[in-house]
Amino acid sequence: MDCGMATESADSPARSDELDARAVERLVFFSDAVIAIIITLMVLEVRLPQLPEHAGDAALRSALAALGPKYHAVLLSFCVIGLFWMVHHRRFNCVLRVDVGVVCLNLMFLLTIACVPFATAVMAEHGGLTSVLLYAGVLTAASLTSALLWWSVGRESIVGPNPEALQEMRIATLMSLTSAAFFIASMGIAFLSTSVAQWSWFLVFGTNWIARELYTRYRPQ
Amino acid sequence: MDCGMATESADSPARSDELDARAVERLVFFSDAVIAIIITLMVLEVRLPQLPEHAGDAALRSALAALGPKYHAVLLSFCVIGLFWMVHHRRFNCVLRVDVGVVCLNLMFLLTIACVPFATAVMAEHGGLTSVLLYAGVLTAASLTSALLWWSVGRESIVGPNPEALQEMRIATLMSLTSAAFFIASMGIAFLSTSVAQWSWFLVFGTNWIARELYTRYRPQ
Amino acid sequence: MDCGMATESADSPARSDELDARAVERLVFFSDAVIAIIITLMVLEVRLPQLPEHAGDAALRSALAALGPKYHAVLLSFCVIGLFWMVHHRRFNCVLRVDVGVVCLNLMFLLTIACVPFATAVMAEHGGLTSVLLYAGVLTAASLTSALLWWSVGRESIVGPNPEALQEMRIATLMSLTSAAFFIASMGIAFLSTSVAQWSWFLVFGTNWIARELYTRYRPQ
Amino acid sequence: MDCGMATESADSPARSDELDARAVERLVFFSDAVIAIIITLMVLEVRLPQLPEHAGDAALRSALAALGPKYHAVLLSFCVIGLFWMVHHRRFNCVLRVDVGVVCLNLMFLLTIACVPFATAVMAEHGGLTSVLLYAGVLTAASLTSALLWWSVGRESIVGPNPEALQEMRIATLMSLTSAAFFIASMGIAFLSTSVAQWSWFLVFGTNWIARELYTRYRPQ
Repeated sequence: MDCGMATESADSPARSDELDARAVERLVFFSDAVIAIIITLMVLEVRLPQLPEHAGDAALRSALAALGPKYHAVLLSFCVIGLFWMVHHRRFNCVLRVDVGVVCLNLMFLLTIACVPFATAVMAEHGGLTSVLLYAGVLTAASLTSALLWWSVGRESIVGPNPEALQEMRIATLMSLTSAAFFIASMGIAFLSTSVAQWSWFLVFGTNWIARELYTRYRPQ
Repeated sequence: MDCGMATESADSPARSDELDARAVERLVFFSDAVIAIIITLMVLEVRLPQLPEHAGDAALRSALAALGPKYHAVLLSFCVIGLFWMVHHRRFNCVLRVDVGVVCLNLMFLLTIACVPFATAVMAEHGGLTSVLLYAGVLTAASLTSALLWWSVGRESIVGPNPEALQEMRIATLMSLTSAAFFIASMGIAFLSTSVAQWSWFLVFGTNWIARELYTRYRPQ
Repeated sequence: MDCGMATESADSPARSDELDARAVERLVFFSDAVIAIIITLMVLEVRLPQLPEHAGDAALRSALAALGPKYHAVLLSFCVIGLFWMVHHRRFNCVLRVDVGVVCLNLMFLLTIACVPFATAVMAEHGGLTSVLLYAGVLTAASLTSALLWWSVGRESIVGPNPEALQEMRIATLMSLTSAAFFIASMGIAFLSTSVAQWSWFLVFGTNWIARELYTRYRPQ
Repeated sequence: MDCGMATESADSPARSDELDARAVERLVFFSDAVIAIIITLMVLEVRLPQLPEHAGDAALRSALAALGPKYHAVLLSFCVIGLFWMVHHRRFNCVLRVDVGVVCLNLMFLLTIACVPFATAVMAEHGGLTSVLLYAGVLTAASLTSALLWWSVGRESIVGPNPEALQEMRIATLMSLTSAAFFIASMGIAFLSTSVAQWSWFLVFGTNWIARELYTRYRPQ
């Protein structure tokens, strides 16, 4: 027996639909809570180092200025995680029920997102080649698990007989793979210049937008 | 395709309304979770410094007393964030659907709120001119993004053809701008006296109340 | 205008009820999130102190044993916060709508609960008279704000014309005042013996149960 | 009076069912929030130790590699907590109402799960016999409280007159007891070899699957 995970149920269809909706809601809720914790704690982690007892205002100002690279890294990661959340938010709105595969892939996706603050902290504090590769590697992993997740969501048993939703999930899979390719390319760039690689990440927003336009225009319909 | 973000949908209107409501609920939920984490961690951050191994009761009492400025700062920030949350709580109750603009502005708003504990900690520990300017600056940023958010919410595509809600959002925008002006003014005061500037912040509650009365009375209806 | 905070609304009653329910749900959700964070972080805070690099198993065992008072304090606080949450959980189920007073008192209540982990940590680390007084003081404050909260909830505009709910809230107020009296009494006991005071707190569960029985039996109906 | 906890209510059945559903939803929500915080903070806890000021890339790489045992332990615990959450997720979908017993047992269950990150950190940092016993002990406690929880949920007053749900809860109880037996056995193995004991934990997934198959096949129906 299985209450509300995608399955043939002996209950009346209405009751079954309600249980399905409840299971989806709980999964969405759990994901939101995890992402909210990750994104908030990453910002709260920006702390002033301990200054000497009676440090003057000038010392405080220079300590604040020294946090510069941290601000930059946290802001970038805030945007990246915020973008991942926004697409998760929009796409799970199409989901009518979930099965074990979707739940597991969603957990894996959350795990990769949970690694972003670690990579952010390492990059903010060191900033050499290794830390840039680490950051791009974590985002590659997040993009790949995203691709797997949307590919798995794009089934009739998940979104129902809804051609638009199925199409959307196919586009989502392709866009996630594009992002992954993008981050892998930035790892190559990092060997030439770490700054160029870091700045290139801001392009992922634009790339995503262009990719969506292209896929939407030339979709095989 | 777009499931539930404000958009012309081919679905039946009832199904579409339900999807819209779900998208709003999730956004509200995410905001609540982020604010709950921020406000709670700020309070939990108040910790006793490590005392020597067998410190007596007198040492403990004086260590507790030394946390005084921290209590004051955290209590102030608790009230400020609580106030921001209360108006968010009340106003999002009017929102029927969201679009990408509202979602992004809401994320920006959460980001500025997430900076409050940092400014609070800096002010509690240092308390000079720089930290007072930092605190007022963060609250100015939060007020300005609030103004943008409520201005963006105050559209028919968001709250529906509801003149009262549209009016409420116009008042909300003006009140947020008033708060911003207030905090900017307190930055000027801080150059004369940091204590006066700090105490003036408690006036924001009263100012907000007066501003609401004025706008409500002389609204162009 | 006011969407869903207890108020006379020009909307249809059904729409208004739905908005009210949404406002209550969001308040309940926010409270749950704050309490979940508090209770979880308090447990997660129990950490092993840094042992020397290649400490053997015996050193680890004695370090684990040395955490004894911490386990005891955290377990006590877990039960206390869990109890507060359970009654909050049960009583807010009767609430049909909220107003600004209830929202503010609920925030104050959450603030006092958020102080419990601080008092717990101080007591676990020091355990003298001052820390016992601090702990009992925080729980007194939590009980008193609880009493205020349930007194404020026990109005027809909040729970509807429901005599049983009104009665329940009157009992809740009296029980919270009983708890407050209990914790104040334990502060007196602490001057004689801190251990007796600490153990007496476990009695609050029994006291609450007896008080409920008495109030229920002799209620002025 | 009792609003929505399993009880004979004078209200109309529909209203009562709605209150019950709300109480269940809130319990489920609270559990999800606690588990989300536990699982996320455990991952966020993986931090790089402070490196010397101008450490080169090689130092960073070796510091990252030195975190190896931590990655392994956190990944294991992520899977274990994820598994506990998934079954909680699926089984609470059958729950129609809750009583005080279920609420208390659920709190106890959350408390044992909240101890997993502590045991994980101790094991990652020390890895000797004591830490392996501690980890297995925490998981034994979590399995036993799980068994109690599902045994308590498997009553008609909780899941309704639903033979399949009652059967599911009986299987859940037996599976939890099987897991407990498994972790106790691994404590015996640890005295012979701690590595074998650690690797054996990954078998709990397989064991659970086999146990489910056996119980389902030979159920007394």
